[in-house]
Amino acid sequence: MSHRRAALVGAGHTRFGALDEGPRKLLRDAVDRAFESVDRGMPRGQVDEAFLASLGFSGWQLGNASALLAEEAGTHQIPVTRVENACASSGFALRAAVRAIESGQCDRVLVAGLEKMTDAPSRRRRYWLGVSGDTEWERLAGLTFAGVYALMASRYLHDYSAPREALAEVAVKNHENGALNPNAHFQKPVSREKALSAPMVADPLRLMDCCPVSDGAAALLLVGEEHARSYTDSPVFVAGTGAGSDSLALQDRESLVHLAATRRAADEAFRHAGFERKAVSFLEVHDCFTIAELLAIEDLGFAKAGQAGRLTLSGATRRDGSLPVNPDGGLKAKGHPIGATGASQVYEVFLQLRGQAGARQLKSPTKALTHNVGGSGASATVTLFTAG
Amino acid sequence: MSHRRAALVGAGHTRFGALDEGPRKLLRDAVDRAFESVDRGMPRGQVDEAFLASLGFSGWQLGNASALLAEEAGTHQIPVTRVENACASSGFALRAAVRAIESGQCDRVLVAGLEKMTDAPSRRRRYWLGVSGDTEWERLAGLTFAGVYALMASRYLHDYSAPREALAEVAVKNHENGALNPNAHFQKPVSREKALSAPMVADPLRLMDCCPVSDGAAALLLVGEEHARSYTDSPVFVAGTGAGSDSLALQDRESLVHLAATRRAADEAFRHAGFERKAVSFLEVHDCFTIAELLAIEDLGFAKAGQAGRLTLSGATRRDGSLPVNPDGGLKAKGHPIGATGASQVYEVFLQLRGQAGARQLKSPTKALTHNVGGSGASATVTLFTAG
Repeated sequence: MSHRRAALVGAGHTRFGALDEGPRKLLRDAVDRAFESVDRGMPRGQVDEAFLASLGFSGWQLGNASALLAEEAGTHQIPVTRVENACASSGFALRAAVRAIESGQCDRVLVAGLEKMTDAPSRRRRYWLGVSGDTEWERLAGLTFAGVYALMASRYLHDYSAPREALAEVAVKNHENGALNPNAHFQKPVSREKALSAPMVADPLRLMDCCPVSDGAAALLLVGEEHARSYTDSPVFVAGTGAGSDSLALQDRESLVHLAATRRAADEAFRHAGFERKAVSFLEVHDCFTIAELLAIEDLGFAKAGQAGRLTLSGATRRDGSLPVNPDGGLKAKGHPIGATGASQVYEVFLQLRGQAGARQLKSPTKALTHNVGGSGASATVTLFTAG
Repeated sequence: MSHRRAALVGAGHTRFGALDEGPRKLLRDAVDRAFESVDRGMPRGQVDEAFLASLGFSGWQLGNASALLAEEAGTHQIPVTRVENACASSGFALRAAVRAIESGQCDRVLVAGLEKMTDAPSRRRRYWLGVSGDTEWERLAGLTFAGVYALMASRYLHDYSAPREALAEVAVKNHENGALNPNAHFQKPVSREKALSAPMVADPLRLMDCCPVSDGAAALLLVGEEHARSYTDSPVFVAGTGAGSDSLALQDRESLVHLAATRRAADEAFRHAGFERKAVSFLEVHDCFTIAELLAIEDLGFAKAGQAGRLTLSGATRRDGSLPVNPDGGLKAKGHPIGATGASQVYEVFLQLRGQAGARQLKSPTKALTHNVGGSGASATVTLFTAG
């Protein structure tokens, strides 16, 4: 069934990191910058509807998070829906926003993703992150979130005789990219030696295999395709979206070395987009841990099972490689304010496809993929974009 | 813009109340009953996508709530999105589900609403309910949720010289209806005298003006209209949806005696539906407190400002009146498991429009309205239905 496409005409982003700003200020800043980024401007009163993605850390003592966006965006009484799918919250919020446009009910939609994490006590933070994975069989038995991914990494290294250096190479590459991203939490390169000798967190994952706990927000403005040119000469079109789910607990899944939710999401997105994987210029994938980037490259269909490590070691996923992955530094270096991550990936796509990514600009990308995972793979979204 | 309509072909409901069952069991029961209610059956593998509405009480120690539905529904790896808009969560989830169908991306969608509240410690419960209202200007200053609605009630009684008896009459009517609903939390009538002399909670609201804290779940099955007749001879069509938002804090709103979010939601829904208010046979409105039912009747456009009390006292909103309101007992008597409430209202519409509401069946209703409010009016959804 053909439908009206959604076009991205604006995107805003705060700095990611351990920030002084509270959640309201972060949200307002990201939204303000999204409106400022619209080449020919967009009056706030034109927006029909908005979606907020946030895990909603209790540290703020704020609930009913959609109302925060309603209050801070200056869009006056429009419907705002909060979507929460753990770390994939803004991927799913984007999916809902795209449908609001494709269904014909909305012409202009705002999506914002937000998390304020660093001011929550670490025990509470562990709880909020922990419940994004399985509680009954994993968390209450003592398994941490890093531990869950460590199980996947161990199995991956074993099954495919993959070199441990491949995990470190993901960190090295993403830190190299993050060093060129003024919004990144970490803006400094990391050496191979340092990545390989960092303190152990959950064997085989070391500190440099884990993304940080960050504050931050990102916002996107989408319009029906027929309106796109009235806002900019360089819109970015949403070509397709896909999503999938799986069991919370690893033990209930068909495999430890692939995420079925990602596979399903990618297949659906490409079916809608009507173009092939080889047409994609670069990927923004969910590298909450280095192993997650390797799994993503394979599950999305860009490498055979067990081959993503060798692909990474070959340099192919660097900015000057044949398939750049996470040119913005990824969750690993850019940071991972949970609800903001999916929208932040799309922000990078917006810059790259318009040639506005500055020092980290890729060479003439035309199509891009974003991949956002909830929990340890209980859900995933994939979105495909094409330059206008 | 014309679009493919969504048709309701199945609905399931658990008992509401202080229940022994945990959240997984409640969810599974509601979903099982929804599938069982489809006249010619629906294989679970046919469902394309699902939406879960839940406030997500921390008492369970469970997060990533969408995964609970993915695991319990037996629908295998389909995308599941969690929507949270405080007490309006399942109203907003329904809106997302309807769009999934109207956009042409989905043919068959499951919506489930769930809350398990009674096993959370009362202090934590107050916190979770409290943060659905304003934190910075209301909750942390000591205002309870009942207190917020008491301010609205005081102002309403004063501005319109409305009789206190009108509030009590809402409770009496809804308990009378709830007594005929085998799923209701309270299945017994309440006398006018008892309603008027119940213990004071927040002046002028007494115990009988407040809905209870309940456990429960409800589930809905929607399909694209062209598929409806393959499941049932009596589908119920979604004629229109609307939603709106407002400030969290009362002090920031234009009025204490109407909810702008409800007005906006109703106007949008009727614009989409293409029929008038006078065509509506009955209303399911969000009566978390008795005053909320009076405000709803007015804000939805079924009585002039200040007139809903007199309308209620006249008997017009009883089951045999000209405009029945909350024939299932409403939040007041049926109970209010937060995330389940919006879906539960639609369950009643499904029964009533198909003539299956048993002892509380209305006389030949053909069109119905559901109204679901988030917090003290920070958001609201309105959905219109028409018998097939």
